[in-house]
Amino acid sequence: MRRLSTQDQNFKQAFADLLAFETVSDPELLKTVDQIIADVRQHGDAHVLKLTQQFDRHPAHQFSELELTQAQLKTAFENLEPQVRDALEMAADRIRAFHQAQKQDGWSYIDELGNTLGQKVTPLDRVGIYVPGGLASYPSSVLMNAIPAHVAGVSEIIMVVPAPDGELNPLVLAAAFLAGVSRVFTIGGAQAVAALAYGTETVPRVDKITGPGNRFVAAAKRAVFGQVGIDMIAGPSEILVYAEGLNNADWLAMDVLSQAEHDTVAQAIFITPDEQLLQAVEEAIEKHLSQLPKAEIACTSIANRGALVLVNSRKEAIELINQVAPEHLELCLDEAKEMATLIRHAGAIFMGRYTPEAIGDYCAGPNHVLPTSGTARFSSPLGVYDFQKRTSLIMCSEQGVQPLARTADILAQQENLDAHARSARYRY
Amino acid sequence: MRRLSTQDQNFKQAFADLLAFETVSDPELLKTVDQIIADVRQHGDAHVLKLTQQFDRHPAHQFSELELTQAQLKTAFENLEPQVRDALEMAADRIRAFHQAQKQDGWSYIDELGNTLGQKVTPLDRVGIYVPGGLASYPSSVLMNAIPAHVAGVSEIIMVVPAPDGELNPLVLAAAFLAGVSRVFTIGGAQAVAALAYGTETVPRVDKITGPGNRFVAAAKRAVFGQVGIDMIAGPSEILVYAEGLNNADWLAMDVLSQAEHDTVAQAIFITPDEQLLQAVEEAIEKHLSQLPKAEIACTSIANRGALVLVNSRKEAIELINQVAPEHLELCLDEAKEMATLIRHAGAIFMGRYTPEAIGDYCAGPNHVLPTSGTARFSSPLGVYDFQKRTSLIMCSEQGVQPLARTADILAQQENLDAHARSARYRY
Repeated sequence: MRRLSTQDQNFKQAFADLLAFETVSDPELLKTVDQIIADVRQHGDAHVLKLTQQFDRHPAHQFSELELTQAQLKTAFENLEPQVRDALEMAADRIRAFHQAQKQDGWSYIDELGNTLGQKVTPLDRVGIYVPGGLASYPSSVLMNAIPAHVAGVSEIIMVVPAPDGELNPLVLAAAFLAGVSRVFTIGGAQAVAALAYGTETVPRVDKITGPGNRFVAAAKRAVFGQVGIDMIAGPSEILVYAEGLNNADWLAMDVLSQAEHDTVAQAIFITPDEQLLQAVEEAIEKHLSQLPKAEIACTSIANRGALVLVNSRKEAIELINQVAPEHLELCLDEAKEMATLIRHAGAIFMGRYTPEAIGDYCAGPNHVLPTSGTARFSSPLGVYDFQKRTSLIMCSEQGVQPLARTADILAQQENLDAHARSARYRY
Repeated sequence: MRRLSTQDQNFKQAFADLLAFETVSDPELLKTVDQIIADVRQHGDAHVLKLTQQFDRHPAHQFSELELTQAQLKTAFENLEPQVRDALEMAADRIRAFHQAQKQDGWSYIDELGNTLGQKVTPLDRVGIYVPGGLASYPSSVLMNAIPAHVAGVSEIIMVVPAPDGELNPLVLAAAFLAGVSRVFTIGGAQAVAALAYGTETVPRVDKITGPGNRFVAAAKRAVFGQVGIDMIAGPSEILVYAEGLNNADWLAMDVLSQAEHDTVAQAIFITPDEQLLQAVEEAIEKHLSQLPKAEIACTSIANRGALVLVNSRKEAIELINQVAPEHLELCLDEAKEMATLIRHAGAIFMGRYTPEAIGDYCAGPNHVLPTSGTARFSSPLGVYDFQKRTSLIMCSEQGVQPLARTADILAQQENLDAHARSARYRY
């Protein structure tokens, strides 16, 4: 595993190289996706059905076979093993409780002139949630996307999930039932994104699309951005673990590996000022790596994008962390809370030795959809606020408008907007 | 001016046609912009200077001449006519006061198991504000973009504004001084967006770029989205005026025209259940139209995209308004407040007869950067929240983690993520 030290002469460059990751935009891919979107807009259901038969080898003969019923979702939920059902319910309850605290309300005030000013908060009418099918089909993602929308008060939550060869993960359907999804279509790819963004005869047009997907889905989401809202385009998952003082190297190693097993381009970085701990964690990673079912993926991730970084001080570590703006940050030290106050950029901070990142992926409560690739510099975890929007409210009184109208008149004239100036002037 | 009535047989289609507006993406434009971005990333200052000399005919010989000093901004402010300076100060004060109410704070709670969960709110470190030069150079836009960033606590606000032939609007500089802008570069176009997104030797890399611009700027913002945050890509401005009861037709007409004068593709719609008022407003629009300095622009806008719509009832109007999701909505009736509670989608609602939209453009307090083209279905006015971001906080206790670790273990196994399961299992 790559070892770096802030005392290395070329550390700055080596650390920058470690973080560098750019998704190349493929003009062929964009062309394909643009064509799919144009065709779905023109031919609706028929084209979505055709592509679903073609790409997913789905046995459906007509579009109506691509919609699931609420009864099917309920059955999937009821047929779960009791311990899995209990786990899913606990996760949903905790996610719901945390997200309820995010809900925003409108407000208004009356200014000193007697004018009312405020902000109204409204849920989105209808949202689309993309859930990948096949291998990367995660029931936890259904909960993490649908529950915030449900808590926000979105009245219709439309889920799309491709069913390769017609097969679906029952746990995904059970999660949809639990999370309050309104309708489920077994479609995927750019055609599903296009159907949600523009609507077809059967699929209703949504206002926002969230959820992860492959490069076709990502390109399609980018293409429909503006027509509908989208969440961020997710990059590979990352973890940065900082440890100090008494720590169990096995625990730390497994936390590092829990990101590495996601993806060959996932990034796991371990930082410590303690050289002995660094050594112990490296040995533990080696030891556990070979025993993982996903050893091959994790090995590639660790070899290509992983790093053990030795720092001189906690202060130095904080600088590096703020530079990385990691998706997941574990602070494994006694003063985790104090240290967290100095972190400016991170998707989620896991504090103390009893808070492994995996808890946050499933059931701690906060969302597991987090900004990746340094975008925590300017964006936030998926939340209820992504499914609410604001409207400004202004109501002037006959008296209160006088000084405002005069000011607007003067400034509008400066901007050569005469109708603006006259419209204001009428009121004073 | 186009007249529609909800009683027309083909009303639904005619109304949908009225709203239809799609910006065509021009592959040549995208190629040009991609090339500019690539060149700025590679050659930095030198390339930005070259393009600024070429496109803006700027007389600068070296890049340092493209940065203004704080002293220059201050001088611009001090040299304003007193009444303009007072107007600008009043606007800035009121915008600041409103936006202060938008500021969000973090929170945390301890769950029944003894685990701490919360949300930390942090300002962005550094943002870029694009201000168009030349004709559409609006000091009000400087205030509306920079003040929310300043209120959020952003430590560096970098403004870019092109100076065609080296000329600048002093009021724009004065507004930058008043709004707390940190640095100003007289650069524009895709090259300015690229410089902000990736940084050059002189221009620091920002975390988010906001502000309006021409199609090169819009395309560049879309291209760098993900590398930095951006606000929405703005479409043409719109107003929808609904009136009922006693109203002054001249006032309403001028409010309609104040949007029409912005742009030939701006959209102004007037809706009423009162046929006489409809007639009076049409006549007033005709009368005032010819007297406006921007009569040509307004005429084209009114002719191509304007409409007078007769409805049967207020209820019908509400349905149309929610369909349009207008950027600006005026409700000119006695029951404006009650009616506003039924509006689900709008950028800003101006209530009552003493609240012309022009007040909101300058000095009411709320932001004038608002979602256009129906995007109020899923997005919000520019606000302090656009310059703050959130980080989830999780801290489990040794006891409190037990049931969570068990649940995470079960669900991770279902998702075939073995390292996740083991990482959780270590804690219980």
